[in-house]
Amino acid sequence: MSSGFAIVNCAQLVTLSGPARPRTGAEMRELGMVENGALLIRDGRIEAVGGREEIERRLSANDTVLDAQGRIALPGFVDAHTHPVFAGTRCAEFELRSQGATYEEIAAAGGGILETVRQTRRATGDELFEAALRRQQWFLRNGTTTVEAKSGYGLALDDELKILRVIRRLNERGPVRWVPTFLGAHAVPEEFRDNRRAYVELVCEVMLPAVASEHLARYCDAFCEPSAFSIDETRTVLRRAASLGLGLRVHADQLTCSGAAELAASLGAATADHLEQTSDAGIAQLRAAGVQPVLLPASVYALGRTRYPRARDMIEAGLAIVLATDFNPGSAPTPSIPMVLSLACTQMHLTPAEAITAATINAAWSVGLGHETGSLEPGKRADVLVADCADYRKLPYFFGVEHAWVVVAGGEVAFRR
Amino acid sequence: MSSGFAIVNCAQLVTLSGPARPRTGAEMRELGMVENGALLIRDGRIEAVGGREEIERRLSANDTVLDAQGRIALPGFVDAHTHPVFAGTRCAEFELRSQGATYEEIAAAGGGILETVRQTRRATGDELFEAALRRQQWFLRNGTTTVEAKSGYGLALDDELKILRVIRRLNERGPVRWVPTFLGAHAVPEEFRDNRRAYVELVCEVMLPAVASEHLARYCDAFCEPSAFSIDETRTVLRRAASLGLGLRVHADQLTCSGAAELAASLGAATADHLEQTSDAGIAQLRAAGVQPVLLPASVYALGRTRYPRARDMIEAGLAIVLATDFNPGSAPTPSIPMVLSLACTQMHLTPAEAITAATINAAWSVGLGHETGSLEPGKRADVLVADCADYRKLPYFFGVEHAWVVVAGGEVAFRR
Repeated sequence: MSSGFAIVNCAQLVTLSGPARPRTGAEMRELGMVENGALLIRDGRIEAVGGREEIERRLSANDTVLDAQGRIALPGFVDAHTHPVFAGTRCAEFELRSQGATYEEIAAAGGGILETVRQTRRATGDELFEAALRRQQWFLRNGTTTVEAKSGYGLALDDELKILRVIRRLNERGPVRWVPTFLGAHAVPEEFRDNRRAYVELVCEVMLPAVASEHLARYCDAFCEPSAFSIDETRTVLRRAASLGLGLRVHADQLTCSGAAELAASLGAATADHLEQTSDAGIAQLRAAGVQPVLLPASVYALGRTRYPRARDMIEAGLAIVLATDFNPGSAPTPSIPMVLSLACTQMHLTPAEAITAATINAAWSVGLGHETGSLEPGKRADVLVADCADYRKLPYFFGVEHAWVVVAGGEVAFRR
Repeated sequence: MSSGFAIVNCAQLVTLSGPARPRTGAEMRELGMVENGALLIRDGRIEAVGGREEIERRLSANDTVLDAQGRIALPGFVDAHTHPVFAGTRCAEFELRSQGATYEEIAAAGGGILETVRQTRRATGDELFEAALRRQQWFLRNGTTTVEAKSGYGLALDDELKILRVIRRLNERGPVRWVPTFLGAHAVPEEFRDNRRAYVELVCEVMLPAVASEHLARYCDAFCEPSAFSIDETRTVLRRAASLGLGLRVHADQLTCSGAAELAASLGAATADHLEQTSDAGIAQLRAAGVQPVLLPASVYALGRTRYPRARDMIEAGLAIVLATDFNPGSAPTPSIPMVLSLACTQMHLTPAEAITAATINAAWSVGLGHETGSLEPGKRADVLVADCADYRKLPYFFGVEHAWVVVAGGEVAFRR
């Protein structure tokens, strides 16, 4: 028996234990909380969860004990939508936006995503890897232990592969677990501006087969928006991806209501992401098809908009919503799930319990890891956030601060304040 | 000569040097930046600021050198409006608000400020001091080295004095500098609900003289709002405070446009705070009277409102605006000035430079410490934030993270990541 690691004296142990599927409706308020709780980790996995005495009886001499001193413990967050591998930042564009320029105006003038593409193409894989490692530290400092990571700042075969190989290298290194998504259909690159059709063909016939044969992505995503890719173009890309065995995610209805949610439903996508503009019909179809909405309030906030996705309506419709950061250098420069929980509770009227469920167990199911992480249950990977407060509701309540005290990822202490 | 402490190799040294008065209009975009800058601290004060070579020439053998490795340095933030001494939190009320209850409904039912008053009255001075010390660490972690701190959760002579003595003890301990403000007129306490006049008289004839004779406050503030204190009641309290030698601050026009800004102008207050609802006439009178607006976007955000104060109009009218957190357990549970900078740039259309000016040099003038802190100039107290980025615009751009790498307060290293 290898030596174990116990965390004891947690005022609240938020387990999120429950049925082995995403949570909907009133289930989203059930946190499976153990007061004065403790847990035991062995071989990187959770061996037992329960009251302090129960766990202490199972300890042997070689085991290490962390006394949480009345803090709370919960599953490490699962961030189900990020764009974390890029070169440079866009703080100059941020300054322009503070002076009134819109995101769409900046994109139309060749800035925005294409500015990050120019910088990312010039960077080497090693440079991108080092930059992403610094961002990994930010994710860990904010309690996130699993990150879905999209490509999409290459938009050419070699550059997209370069980004996806960086994500693979990050995942091999750990301790964060990275879930790779190919997003060749993020924007039409400058050199294809007058020949969109050829770019879609390149994505489908060159990039996707290469990505699939190197097993570089678990999902394929596309930015479905009149200013990016049309419904037809998105369908073409995602059908090809599905035929190669990739799961599907869709950037849907962020800036306009284009029917992208309905497309995600018709394709049986794992998730439809953003959904700020989605109609009742779109919500109904997502429900019928079992697609999980991934809501990204940080980008609404950071773009200075006020129309947040209709999370409450989605919960009432029975959808297993997810909250994620959308971490990226343009519309959402935050790696902080607690900040997203704050936005969810103050701007979208989710309760703290619903928001936490959306960013842990529901998020884990949305990236295909519901059996592996997202709750504190025996057998799961030991991804644990010990936060420096005594009540889970303080995670969204106190905002703009980093709450993590200790973060355990795959059984290793990955961050300690 | 005592030994010195130099900080060198700052990609940007944001000095905020300039005229010895609050900054208005285009001045708010002038950061007095030195590239590849350095500074030298001796006896807790800034001795010299300049290029790296210039500072290195002044070093002697006993001096310590901190290599910022290309990070930025700027003045420690001055948080000009906080309520940091209280017992308990209001995360249960936060949960109610996430379910749709309004701040006003909760207050009318005896919750809100009065709930914190009940808990704070039960706490001892030592308990309040320990809780405030933990919050001091949060301020430091977010780069704040000077904090204006209001009483107002006692609302009885002994309890108000207890809070103000805690603030004095915090200030004596350091390293944060605390500026005490008496806020007896924060709410009418339950025991005076049917006799408001007697409470105002208690504030004026018992509390204020006691506070003044013990030199426990530099300012007096009042919450001028139909649901708190009327224009006439506020005038009565603040005139009495002025007669005792206290400077004046006013919670003005937060929830309704009641003429509080005009009152602040007529009384010659140092600041008028909040101003979400202030009219053009109010802005003009603040300008004419030289009152500084203290804008508090974190409370707009946290209450789920969308009407932010008209910062741009105020700058154009020539007002020397200030940004502060409003840190308190109800409407603004954040100690983070960087979070407020993010709100200012994304929701109020200030530029990063304007926002930083508002939270440093302008804030310092608003608390009577413009000659002492708020800029990096020879002779000033050495309050310095070394932030973990290479461009000052990243402070508001990346949000939800703690940017501080090293914080120096009064020449001492008060925080180091």
